[in-house]
Amino acid sequence: MSFNTFGHLFRVTTFGESHGVAIGCVVDGCPPLIPLTEADIQGDLDRRRPGQSRFTTQRQEADQVKILSGVMVHPETGVQVTTGTPIALLIENTDQRSKDYSDIQNKFRPGHADFTYEAKYGIRDYRGGGRSSARETASRVAAGAIARKVIAGMTVRGALVQIGPHKIDRDKWDWDEIGNNPFFCPDKDKAAFYADYLDGIRKSGSSIGAVVEIVAEGVPAGLGAPIYAKLDGDLAAALMSINAVKGVEIGDGFASAELTGEQNADEMRTGNHGPAFLSNHAGGILGGISTGQPVVARFAVKPTSSILTPRKTVDRTGHDTEILTKGRHDPCVGIRAVPVGEAMVACVLADHLLRHRGQVGG
Amino acid sequence: MSFNTFGHLFRVTTFGESHGVAIGCVVDGCPPLIPLTEADIQGDLDRRRPGQSRFTTQRQEADQVKILSGVMVHPETGVQVTTGTPIALLIENTDQRSKDYSDIQNKFRPGHADFTYEAKYGIRDYRGGGRSSARETASRVAAGAIARKVIAGMTVRGALVQIGPHKIDRDKWDWDEIGNNPFFCPDKDKAAFYADYLDGIRKSGSSIGAVVEIVAEGVPAGLGAPIYAKLDGDLAAALMSINAVKGVEIGDGFASAELTGEQNADEMRTGNHGPAFLSNHAGGILGGISTGQPVVARFAVKPTSSILTPRKTVDRTGHDTEILTKGRHDPCVGIRAVPVGEAMVACVLADHLLRHRGQVGG
Amino acid sequence: MSFNTFGHLFRVTTFGESHGVAIGCVVDGCPPLIPLTEADIQGDLDRRRPGQSRFTTQRQEADQVKILSGVMVHPETGVQVTTGTPIALLIENTDQRSKDYSDIQNKFRPGHADFTYEAKYGIRDYRGGGRSSARETASRVAAGAIARKVIAGMTVRGALVQIGPHKIDRDKWDWDEIGNNPFFCPDKDKAAFYADYLDGIRKSGSSIGAVVEIVAEGVPAGLGAPIYAKLDGDLAAALMSINAVKGVEIGDGFASAELTGEQNADEMRTGNHGPAFLSNHAGGILGGISTGQPVVARFAVKPTSSILTPRKTVDRTGHDTEILTKGRHDPCVGIRAVPVGEAMVACVLADHLLRHRGQVGG
Amino acid sequence: MSFNTFGHLFRVTTFGESHGVAIGCVVDGCPPLIPLTEADIQGDLDRRRPGQSRFTTQRQEADQVKILSGVMVHPETGVQVTTGTPIALLIENTDQRSKDYSDIQNKFRPGHADFTYEAKYGIRDYRGGGRSSARETASRVAAGAIARKVIAGMTVRGALVQIGPHKIDRDKWDWDEIGNNPFFCPDKDKAAFYADYLDGIRKSGSSIGAVVEIVAEGVPAGLGAPIYAKLDGDLAAALMSINAVKGVEIGDGFASAELTGEQNADEMRTGNHGPAFLSNHAGGILGGISTGQPVVARFAVKPTSSILTPRKTVDRTGHDTEILTKGRHDPCVGIRAVPVGEAMVACVLADHLLRHRGQVGG
Repeated sequence: MSFNTFGHLFRVTTFGESHGVAIGCVVDGCPPLIPLTEADIQGDLDRRRPGQSRFTTQRQEADQVKILSGVMVHPETGVQVTTGTPIALLIENTDQRSKDYSDIQNKFRPGHADFTYEAKYGIRDYRGGGRSSARETASRVAAGAIARKVIAGMTVRGALVQIGPHKIDRDKWDWDEIGNNPFFCPDKDKAAFYADYLDGIRKSGSSIGAVVEIVAEGVPAGLGAPIYAKLDGDLAAALMSINAVKGVEIGDGFASAELTGEQNADEMRTGNHGPAFLSNHAGGILGGISTGQPVVARFAVKPTSSILTPRKTVDRTGHDTEILTKGRHDPCVGIRAVPVGEAMVACVLADHLLRHRGQVGG
Repeated sequence: MSFNTFGHLFRVTTFGESHGVAIGCVVDGCPPLIPLTEADIQGDLDRRRPGQSRFTTQRQEADQVKILSGVMVHPETGVQVTTGTPIALLIENTDQRSKDYSDIQNKFRPGHADFTYEAKYGIRDYRGGGRSSARETASRVAAGAIARKVIAGMTVRGALVQIGPHKIDRDKWDWDEIGNNPFFCPDKDKAAFYADYLDGIRKSGSSIGAVVEIVAEGVPAGLGAPIYAKLDGDLAAALMSINAVKGVEIGDGFASAELTGEQNADEMRTGNHGPAFLSNHAGGILGGISTGQPVVARFAVKPTSSILTPRKTVDRTGHDTEILTKGRHDPCVGIRAVPVGEAMVACVLADHLLRHRGQVGG
Repeated sequence: MSFNTFGHLFRVTTFGESHGVAIGCVVDGCPPLIPLTEADIQGDLDRRRPGQSRFTTQRQEADQVKILSGVMVHPETGVQVTTGTPIALLIENTDQRSKDYSDIQNKFRPGHADFTYEAKYGIRDYRGGGRSSARETASRVAAGAIARKVIAGMTVRGALVQIGPHKIDRDKWDWDEIGNNPFFCPDKDKAAFYADYLDGIRKSGSSIGAVVEIVAEGVPAGLGAPIYAKLDGDLAAALMSINAVKGVEIGDGFASAELTGEQNADEMRTGNHGPAFLSNHAGGILGGISTGQPVVARFAVKPTSSILTPRKTVDRTGHDTEILTKGRHDPCVGIRAVPVGEAMVACVLADHLLRHRGQVGG
Repeated sequence: MSFNTFGHLFRVTTFGESHGVAIGCVVDGCPPLIPLTEADIQGDLDRRRPGQSRFTTQRQEADQVKILSGVMVHPETGVQVTTGTPIALLIENTDQRSKDYSDIQNKFRPGHADFTYEAKYGIRDYRGGGRSSARETASRVAAGAIARKVIAGMTVRGALVQIGPHKIDRDKWDWDEIGNNPFFCPDKDKAAFYADYLDGIRKSGSSIGAVVEIVAEGVPAGLGAPIYAKLDGDLAAALMSINAVKGVEIGDGFASAELTGEQNADEMRTGNHGPAFLSNHAGGILGGISTGQPVVARFAVKPTSSILTPRKTVDRTGHDTEILTKGRHDPCVGIRAVPVGEAMVACVLADHLLRHRGQVGG
């Protein structure tokens, strides 16, 4: 994690502001000879795309990705593959409404990064949040689609497991339900509840937080580079870097603070394919290294601060004032964070797979 | 965060195993002309040192730090100062009992990193956990003592806020109490309760988890480098890298998932020294950049897996067996994680201070 | 220097192949509030652009740069400035002739990277050299234009000082002549000679090597981060990374091997502005840190291997064959390496300026 | 190359000053299960050790290396092997004479880093050059000994090929002669000449420059990570970082500036083991990637500036003065740079081997 680049061997550098010409990224270090087309990436982008239901921002972006470099049609197979050189991806910004930004140009929106960007840089791109806009996460999702191909054999899936105080019923978890509702929710009944609940939030001009869970299956034992590139450490950084995320946990997470050693440690027994764990409180990571069990990470997303209720703030000239954020916003930004979380986990796993192969081989 | 090094401009590389010759670290990038003696570091190390109460491991280590490089007596002032070159710190391992490790040599202790290190490297240092031992954190605390000098004017303090299901009463928070009990607990009454509670845990040969909170005050607005070196992202990686940590949160953390936008966003008013926030749900960070408010981070520490109850496991030859971890261990490893957490936060702040100065100046 | 990124605080990531959709780069870490327009960058690009004389490749590329992110019009001054966020630059490839590449597709051109890219990646973009084409250097020049603004007050200029065995007369060095001939040659008479000499090389279908010298003036004393980020070490990496470069030297360089200690070390005397050196054998760098004198670096560029004489080679199926490289190529690639060398030096200085400010301040 | 660390996957961090307690390094990322003892490292250190002939400094250092971490006796084979964790190496400084440094404490020695360290850091360790002393290179040689084990199958050897204006006769190159003279000279006759020549230099209190050549054989095709981690770029940085080095070249180096395309490009023919080159002007690297031929690098070492002739300089208070460097110094520091150059090349190759394996596998 370094400035606008993340990863060591599988490296992603993103660029772009919400209302600039374009956003995009450069994926460096991708292994060669992996089949890759724009369609492979577009699928993941479409899952994240706004405006697909009344529960996400009505901003209409085609989010059409274009591959600028790093691939070519294999002269023998005729299949477009990666070449081992950097893959640049471009997504043009098409819905940059020439709206009136004068209000947020001069006032700091509470809960947003307006004040801090200006404190740091002495200037901020006030148009739609600029670099701090969640729009940047489209680049991550695009990079994540490539990462998924690098970790072929592993499956990375995400689910919304809580909105406001309302948690899903884990006994009703059904991955097949994820695509059947606009919340990426694996609990069919709770999804129905969320629809009503969020309608209320949306109509009142308010917003609400959420918790997202990412599960990676098929992760081989041995990924992770202690001490300061532990798999969980890198996951924590990757997930915390997503807009509005305020907490990250692995396996039992904060609940493990309440457990005894007997309750927490996962016992082992010989299985058909070597040592097997009898439970997964650890979330698939011990000592910063994957155990071979599913890697389980969760993150908390705060409610968006763009609400229709006037809020106290100050303006750039140092006077007290109020602000009310109109415009197209998500009542629950946690929803669209699901594919973003998947992408980050996929990127971290791809990076660690290559790093492991580098140091240890195999 | 990269392998055994963390930080970009203020860089710390640690080395050493629990039962090897020595542990230590190299602190690179420290600004010159900062007064620094071994005593400055020893104070922090002593706070972390085991064997100081019956609630931490009885391993007896002097943990005497030695500065090998990077300082000299200033020819004019006669004060020993940093020179801008790498500061190497050495802590010899003095209590390496020649105990019988044959049991854990051949069996994987549940909840420990035994299985994963062996899966990754094909070998593991079974003596006291080797590199995965919490002993490594002494190097972090030593580095953190130097970091504190780099961020002069900022104060980084930690507190134990929960053991098992028992949280402190935040209304009773008194920083002065931290040094009055062996738990770094700011709530005098809860500290008394913890003493009894942990005695029970200890006598039963069990262990219990905990939650630690770190508060950094005096942090100027503007630290943090979006998008992938956000201050909270780096804090998350740093804290998650501590042994046994399973969750990290900033400000309201996971609780923010339950809040509405009205409840969560911190309003602002003009203060005596510029814009001021009326609350701190954000934990001092917005958009990955410090707000000028106290930076508040919490992390969950799982119970140590070294307990006196026999646990199911497998041995290296693939047979089912049981293991029971004797020896000197902490009933609640979260306690000693407090100074470690402080050190990690101090190091992250030092790094970001230098990075900010590099890009933006000032 | 890391994969397709160089620099630590001022970081440049380039992407793109010779005959792909576009090339470009992401400049990360640029300080905010620096005035920057596309015109600022275009000037440097135009100096490097091919097809400007009969001595460089006749490939016709507009090399029109487009800024995709990282700038905005300052709301108060109306001047477009950097915002501190990543600046993405795009240069579309407009002259991708649909020529017949079947010959070089199947044969390895001697002296080119055909064999090694294929050995490394199992595939290579044979169209115009792909990633190994000198076209990539346009991205560097664009980034260098931004770097120049970061190091305002320093001047970085390059000159061609040797073509084949013919060196310039240093007594006739006149920076004003650089723009008066198509060789960036500071010696007017030698430039006239080069014109005739290169005509002969060109007409015979051959090519010739060259030496380029870069001089940076106004560099403050103190830049450089020993031991492994010495200013000269970073310059060596940066210049050696330019296509066809086979040697780099600082100050007296290889000639210093023939000197005695008396001849080589630059003596000092008190000057008007502090200590002053009486000579500059060191090329402005001692112990990896700038002295305050002009930084002087030179690099040798081999002749391009694209010549009209048939050469022995093998094809991808392992058979002996011959190849003759037709097409648009430079008789002396060293010429266009001059602005590229300037750009690399400017980028290294910008990076070190920010790093120095980070660690030491000021 | 980053501050006091070099390498990406095989990472070396060095520390220590000439007259401090100790010097040493941390080697991070070394693959596990490689047999390694202190004796393996000591052999290389002894080749670099000063005081072995009258042609190198008479400083007497045992240079005894101690492994502090990262190895253990394999429980099954009884052989001490690497564990995959950081290997810390310590070399104590034993010959720190309490001599009078008052002269160099206050005066800047011409040609040394005295002025620049003070300009950068505001302080410098004047005792024996501090961090800028060639003593630091002992740490590199120690790390290089480990790197050699990582690149088993490759051979890295160095030779002194020029002292002052006197070059060896390449037709007389005999690697077996390297160990038969105190110059690492492969030309027996020239070695005899050098003995007389350097005696004259030494007795006159002067010093002289040199050129060193490093040849790595057995390097597989495919190592190197274009564009900004080219094998030659990394070699250039690594070799330029050695004390007193002012120039680096690969293959024909600066001589290639005088060649035509016909003369320079290495033709190919099918060999017994795949494509083979008919010459090696490229020095084993094309497009930044190894060709499978021997990698050939050369570097120029300036004469040490510590000479017995008084030289003009200024003191720290800004007054003109003279200085004469007494003490134990090398008449030709290029000699001891030979094993250091080997170590740097071995480290770069180890790093690139792991990186290549990471991205491409195999």
